[in-house]
Amino acid sequence: MPRLILVRHGQSQWNLENRFTGWWDVDLTAQGETEARAAGALLAEKALLPTVAFTSVQTRAIRTLHIALRACDRLWIPEFKDWRLNERHYGGLTGLDKAETAAKHGVEQVKIWRRSFDTPPPVLEPGSKYDLAHDPRYAGVAIPATESLKDTIARVLPYYESAIAPMLRAGETVLVAAHGNSLRALVKHLSNISDAEIVGLEIPTGRPIVYDLADDLTARERFYLSER
Amino acid sequence: MPRLILVRHGQSQWNLENRFTGWWDVDLTAQGETEARAAGALLAEKALLPTVAFTSVQTRAIRTLHIALRACDRLWIPEFKDWRLNERHYGGLTGLDKAETAAKHGVEQVKIWRRSFDTPPPVLEPGSKYDLAHDPRYAGVAIPATESLKDTIARVLPYYESAIAPMLRAGETVLVAAHGNSLRALVKHLSNISDAEIVGLEIPTGRPIVYDLADDLTARERFYLSER
Repeated sequence: MPRLILVRHGQSQWNLENRFTGWWDVDLTAQGETEARAAGALLAEKALLPTVAFTSVQTRAIRTLHIALRACDRLWIPEFKDWRLNERHYGGLTGLDKAETAAKHGVEQVKIWRRSFDTPPPVLEPGSKYDLAHDPRYAGVAIPATESLKDTIARVLPYYESAIAPMLRAGETVLVAAHGNSLRALVKHLSNISDAEIVGLEIPTGRPIVYDLADDLTARERFYLSER
Repeated sequence: MPRLILVRHGQSQWNLENRFTGWWDVDLTAQGETEARAAGALLAEKALLPTVAFTSVQTRAIRTLHIALRACDRLWIPEFKDWRLNERHYGGLTGLDKAETAAKHGVEQVKIWRRSFDTPPPVLEPGSKYDLAHDPRYAGVAIPATESLKDTIARVLPYYESAIAPMLRAGETVLVAAHGNSLRALVKHLSNISDAEIVGLEIPTGRPIVYDLADDLTARERFYLSER
């Protein structure tokens, strides 16, 4: 039976500081590392052992994967990293904390960006200190200037279809360690969640979401792993 | 210019206990982790940044890779794991410490095994506590019962030719994080070292060996990285 396990990275330094992160590369905090270890320990405890893994090209997701795999003694499985599993790009909001964002754009506007499926925040200005144009990990990638959730989904799902789905069809147990919004894309697809509803669906950090799939990769069951 | 960087994993728990390890999966000690970090920091300092990485399916090499890549901010590069980069299989010596080996087989016999290019130690008995027949990472792999250094080289080099060499020909800077004997195989090949000499060539731990290669992948230069 194909099985897909989703793990959202745990606390990063900017989660802690309440700043918009998006594509900026921020590492896990010690608490984030603990969450990743707990996720891996849960997989071991429930004997839900991945046979192949996918992650983004962002440190916080890659390290979540490595820490979780170590905790369930699966460091040796194949792993694939791709920018299309990155977090949503928050454009010009990148780096701003809650207070700065409200001061700059107003509380109401921020609510609109947070609640909207297809309204992107303002673009990240070229030459901004958060401009990734010279980051070698994105050489050859058309880096977005900003993304709505809809935009994020539009690059996650083709990657799912081309890279992840074939592994599932081959019967693998696939672990995806990624971000709130790239995982929303997968949950929306697999659980048929509407545009309006997906915006409000919270993906828990460090708590594996397990999909048991039919041979045609429709979801038979979705469940959240948690400690007793 | 193609470039190949070799890093031998740092101290493992069984290195510390002076036990034959081979294919048994033993983790790094805290000192081994420090060595891996130092190797990655050296790569960053010398601007020798890998663009693709290879390792074995053994925890001590994989973790050396991950720790080194983190130290040079290259966690995001593609990585490939393969059993053919594993340490030499020490057969029936697996798990024995220096004193136990000498007591069981005699000091002279142990010297022969250590110094010989093509004499394997006795086989690991099936059902031994170090038998890996049921380890899922070796599903579908013809696990050797023992290996001489010659046997190890005979599985490392075809993997180098089929998986690593094409990356080098494409101009990548390839990092291989592996083991004393799988790295000896690569050094023997690239530096044209004789059977008699390779047995005595020590690969330093946590200290990158860098090969600058010609387009036909013959070695133009080999150098060891070290701190000033």
